[in-house]
Amino acid sequence: MIFYTFTEQRLREFTEQVFLKMGCPEADAKLAADVLLKSDLRGIDSHGVARLTGYVRLWEKERINARPQIKVVHETATTATVDGDAGLGLVVAPFAMQLAIDKAKTYGSGWVAVKNSNHFGIAGYHSLMAVAEDMIGISMTNASPLVAPTYANERLLGTNPMCYAFPAGKYPPVVVDMATAAAANGKLEIAQRANSPIPEGWAQDKNGQMSTDPNELKAGGSLLPLGSDKTHGSHKGYGLSATVDILSAVLSGANYGPWVPPFVAFLDPPTDPVGEGIGHFFGAMRIDGFRPAQDFKDHLDNWIERFKSAKTVDPEKRVIIPGEPEYAFEAERRINGIPLIEAVVTDLNQLAVKMGIEILDA
Amino acid sequence: MIFYTFTEQRLREFTEQVFLKMGCPEADAKLAADVLLKSDLRGIDSHGVARLTGYVRLWEKERINARPQIKVVHETATTATVDGDAGLGLVVAPFAMQLAIDKAKTYGSGWVAVKNSNHFGIAGYHSLMAVAEDMIGISMTNASPLVAPTYANERLLGTNPMCYAFPAGKYPPVVVDMATAAAANGKLEIAQRANSPIPEGWAQDKNGQMSTDPNELKAGGSLLPLGSDKTHGSHKGYGLSATVDILSAVLSGANYGPWVPPFVAFLDPPTDPVGEGIGHFFGAMRIDGFRPAQDFKDHLDNWIERFKSAKTVDPEKRVIIPGEPEYAFEAERRINGIPLIEAVVTDLNQLAVKMGIEILDA
Repeated sequence: MIFYTFTEQRLREFTEQVFLKMGCPEADAKLAADVLLKSDLRGIDSHGVARLTGYVRLWEKERINARPQIKVVHETATTATVDGDAGLGLVVAPFAMQLAIDKAKTYGSGWVAVKNSNHFGIAGYHSLMAVAEDMIGISMTNASPLVAPTYANERLLGTNPMCYAFPAGKYPPVVVDMATAAAANGKLEIAQRANSPIPEGWAQDKNGQMSTDPNELKAGGSLLPLGSDKTHGSHKGYGLSATVDILSAVLSGANYGPWVPPFVAFLDPPTDPVGEGIGHFFGAMRIDGFRPAQDFKDHLDNWIERFKSAKTVDPEKRVIIPGEPEYAFEAERRINGIPLIEAVVTDLNQLAVKMGIEILDA
Repeated sequence: MIFYTFTEQRLREFTEQVFLKMGCPEADAKLAADVLLKSDLRGIDSHGVARLTGYVRLWEKERINARPQIKVVHETATTATVDGDAGLGLVVAPFAMQLAIDKAKTYGSGWVAVKNSNHFGIAGYHSLMAVAEDMIGISMTNASPLVAPTYANERLLGTNPMCYAFPAGKYPPVVVDMATAAAANGKLEIAQRANSPIPEGWAQDKNGQMSTDPNELKAGGSLLPLGSDKTHGSHKGYGLSATVDILSAVLSGANYGPWVPPFVAFLDPPTDPVGEGIGHFFGAMRIDGFRPAQDFKDHLDNWIERFKSAKTVDPEKRVIIPGEPEYAFEAERRINGIPLIEAVVTDLNQLAVKMGIEILDA
């Protein structure tokens, strides 16, 4: 596979320009670009600039509003529901997390459900906003239905990620950021491109039989919940995904389950919506609402050290702390740049031509 | 296997008497019995009266304090840390959840971390306290180390359950209550008694190799996180378990990871504790902090109906709503009584003789 590498700065400018051409206010364009770039920097290539044309296509179909009036529509001291006005999730989500953080500053914690939004990028971005304030950050979102609950032969849930992030002392934050499916859709797409089989336990075909063919998902199959089958706890993955769906959408007034509108513009949203747009859920808790922040960080450092030094099965491998690989990617890519596969560069440059901005010089 | 069936009322009286003999105040004895009985009623036989002798043995070793002074040691408007004073988790946990509920009544949400506690029974009991107040209930606890994180050949985490409970309208509450391991220890114990193999993916032997022998856990092996292996997402199960450990113990000042004291009295706690006792974490959020409670319930009913009527792989099976089987068990056992296996009855009657209370008449 051919890669071209670009500096963070170049991709950031490019992405900002695309969002400006969409009509986003300048602050929104900068923020949305920051969320996408954070994903590329952290090595989560599936959720970064590779999705930029996807957002543009939704905007072209008028399913994304470039100039949303984001509003708080319901509120208590520590809870709120935000209406994203069909804006970019990349803009709506940081607004909602900031509200959660502001409430936590005053009352110890803040919790915000969001309706009428769109894809919000990586969950980790939003949780890390809270970590920067010495808070625990929680973020989740529902997503287009791709996953069959245990026993089902139907896609009723998205890969519905949940993310918990904790500030450490001398180590990077612990960031648990995970799809609640056995494998995220991005992994299947990689296998499709390479035309290689996928492990049993990731997907089932249209008849509900486990399949190792990565193309079965597009042929009417489904992804499987974390746990893969009942014996190995797929009802737990399904339960977690249901939790994300209920907190993000049943609580906020967004669409849930099979009614969640698809991210891809070539599929139309259901004609019988049960809510507005897709939903997210955010939380922020001040560490010093429970114990002095430094005590927490010292103990989390101790936790990290104990786990990193655990006895392993393979002496060549060690236990990985959640968020550690992404942190290492970010340090490296800030210096050496961000590699994009040729197909993504081609796609972005077609977009650049269409929107009248300077192409990426590979 | 031989079962004897007892009325809820008889087992409740028996259990209360045991706690009274331990020296618990009457209100605490009633509460602790209520938590254990709820587990038996809900069909979670591993966490009910079958554990009663386990609590007594810890009390005999002076690792459970029958008359704790439970204290709030740190607090903001919506957050708190509780010191359980080495009391029964069955008593400390409802105290902490009640505090979370009280805070939520005033401020919309409440979050309480607990240190210096013991095993708290089923997580669902505590979450359902919030549901009874039209709130979302969240509960989790860390536990004795039995689970190896991805790549480890060491037990560093407990089966660390997390529970999310939501009030519905015409249907029972949705209760996601799950160990973050691929299979809970109780399932291995059943296989040990039956001397039958366990599925690959539940446990590894002392050399870190997957094993189908249920006795390997006691021979130095480990349980595996939800996901079973890296390919199927065991790093996600490990991440969830780590989240429970950090929220329950690093945040509260309890022991975490391999330092969590064992539930079984014949194993001594580590001599180098990093905190006090075991830890829990509770949350309560008012539904009407986000939208009118009736709107939420109507949509959750719709969610439930859609999932229950999903197309299934096997036409004889349907998609199960989280908490639905436990609710059915409770309805049935309240009428027909609670079946206990012979070994549990024998164990309880030996306890009765030792404590000078009336035996269960099988």
